[in-house]
Amino acid sequence: MPGLAEGQVLVRNRYLSIDPYMLGRMYAAQSYAAAQPLEETMVGETAGHVVASRHPGFNVGEAVVGMFGWQEYGLSDGAKVRKVDESGASLSAYLGMLGMSGVTAWYGMTAICRPKKGETVLVSAAAGAVGGVALQLAKARGCKVIGIAGGERKCRYVTGELGADACIDYRTISSGEMLTEAISRHAGNGIDAFFDNVNGWILDSALPVINLHGRIALCGMIGRFGDRPMQLSSHHFLLFSRLMAQGFIVWDHVDKWDEAVNELRGLMNDGLLKSEETFAVGIESAPDACIGLLTGKNLGKQLVRFH
Amino acid sequence: MPGLAEGQVLVRNRYLSIDPYMLGRMYAAQSYAAAQPLEETMVGETAGHVVASRHPGFNVGEAVVGMFGWQEYGLSDGAKVRKVDESGASLSAYLGMLGMSGVTAWYGMTAICRPKKGETVLVSAAAGAVGGVALQLAKARGCKVIGIAGGERKCRYVTGELGADACIDYRTISSGEMLTEAISRHAGNGIDAFFDNVNGWILDSALPVINLHGRIALCGMIGRFGDRPMQLSSHHFLLFSRLMAQGFIVWDHVDKWDEAVNELRGLMNDGLLKSEETFAVGIESAPDACIGLLTGKNLGKQLVRFH
Repeated sequence: MPGLAEGQVLVRNRYLSIDPYMLGRMYAAQSYAAAQPLEETMVGETAGHVVASRHPGFNVGEAVVGMFGWQEYGLSDGAKVRKVDESGASLSAYLGMLGMSGVTAWYGMTAICRPKKGETVLVSAAAGAVGGVALQLAKARGCKVIGIAGGERKCRYVTGELGADACIDYRTISSGEMLTEAISRHAGNGIDAFFDNVNGWILDSALPVINLHGRIALCGMIGRFGDRPMQLSSHHFLLFSRLMAQGFIVWDHVDKWDEAVNELRGLMNDGLLKSEETFAVGIESAPDACIGLLTGKNLGKQLVRFH
Repeated sequence: MPGLAEGQVLVRNRYLSIDPYMLGRMYAAQSYAAAQPLEETMVGETAGHVVASRHPGFNVGEAVVGMFGWQEYGLSDGAKVRKVDESGASLSAYLGMLGMSGVTAWYGMTAICRPKKGETVLVSAAAGAVGGVALQLAKARGCKVIGIAGGERKCRYVTGELGADACIDYRTISSGEMLTEAISRHAGNGIDAFFDNVNGWILDSALPVINLHGRIALCGMIGRFGDRPMQLSSHHFLLFSRLMAQGFIVWDHVDKWDEAVNELRGLMNDGLLKSEETFAVGIESAPDACIGLLTGKNLGKQLVRFH
């Protein structure tokens, strides 16, 4: 453990957030950001408590969220470390529905999907940390919500716990045409907005069912298993149906963080926002937790809880 | 020639506009609109003069634009017939840079591409009726403009007559990678906005070169030669580069028509907006003119002038 210099703060991390973007960092090819350098701490968001401080803004015992990566302690000059309030929510929630996952869902739904009451909204990876919040935000706005998730257990969670009107289990579906048909059948009158965490064949299958002037928030690509996604063949519906597709990452919109967390906390307090948490225990479990996330094993937010 | 009923107006068409959307109407598959019914007059925009009127709003001799299709005369109750002023512009201009082509370019550039001074804008089919206006609008906003067109004559027109900073002749380029490289080289610092009339491999090759938060106006698909476009393999740049892609057709935005024509007319009067016109003569030439447009033979606006 290094000694603290003047102005530094030492944090004991309690939780590490495991997120789909981590796969992108493990490719050499361009993604949002530079690839993860070898022989350095793997990137990751963490929540923990201050255990030593020579920084005037931080006191021992305070709960903080930071980007300390896959490690049990973090040392910082205080920049990019955010204090959080444990009185109203669990510490781990600040990595999930009140953290990056929740704000990501909030931005994509609020600024890109912009659903109006009575519209129909599709959410892929609906049982995940981002998708689950996105679908509850659409429900809170009075929309009909169709989820897509993998497996019966996830679909039960999406409709039973999160309140989606329907959930399509893509694992029971063997072709893009059949998925298009399933979305169309559950939607009834087409899809007005699509919050997409998957890309690939899920996006390709949804495009023909999106109504005139529909909006698509391109949030993630958890459907890829290579450094490039599959080809899109239905992209001409962007033109035919005059759709708007917008890629985004939450870090471009940190100015909206407080507004987002305020709404999310309000919904949580009203019982309109929940998220399952899946815990792996000990830093040694992080690689398996990451693989599990990418192969769809988790329900809700995937976290590592440190010993 | 039918007799006029009370409230009807008879127009002698002088010009017929030939446009890429006509191909879409000739497929049975879904496009913007229903397919062209067989054994009915082929759809098309026309400009002409009133030759008989039993409608209080129209007088013999007045110049009008309408959707009378591929025919020399049109009969109407006055709905969707727009009077135009021949004193400041030629009648044919109301089918081109002051008509549907110009307003299409204006909407895509103004509302979707939204270029700021000093940005770099890419325009495909830049020697066409829509692309040519789009690129001059971007120039008028102080942008660096790169055109893409087919053949040396068109590229000379795009840089020499229309004022683009560079024009890439895609016919000299044999792969998507080479086109990506050419766009990148001419742009210098990447592309901030892309007005795309082509889709297919042109769109696919441009996507990797579009800068963070770039905008793409999806205006047309003149690159297709079948009822489906080619697959897109670079669509993941929508996500990685947080791009916004928006499909549109001008008919969704007729409320902006006067604003658009006012700006276009102002630019024209200032010598900042020009468009070549390519004329075929006689209605019997319309099918060949349409095939010529789709195979890239025309410069600027393709019209049929009636005998």
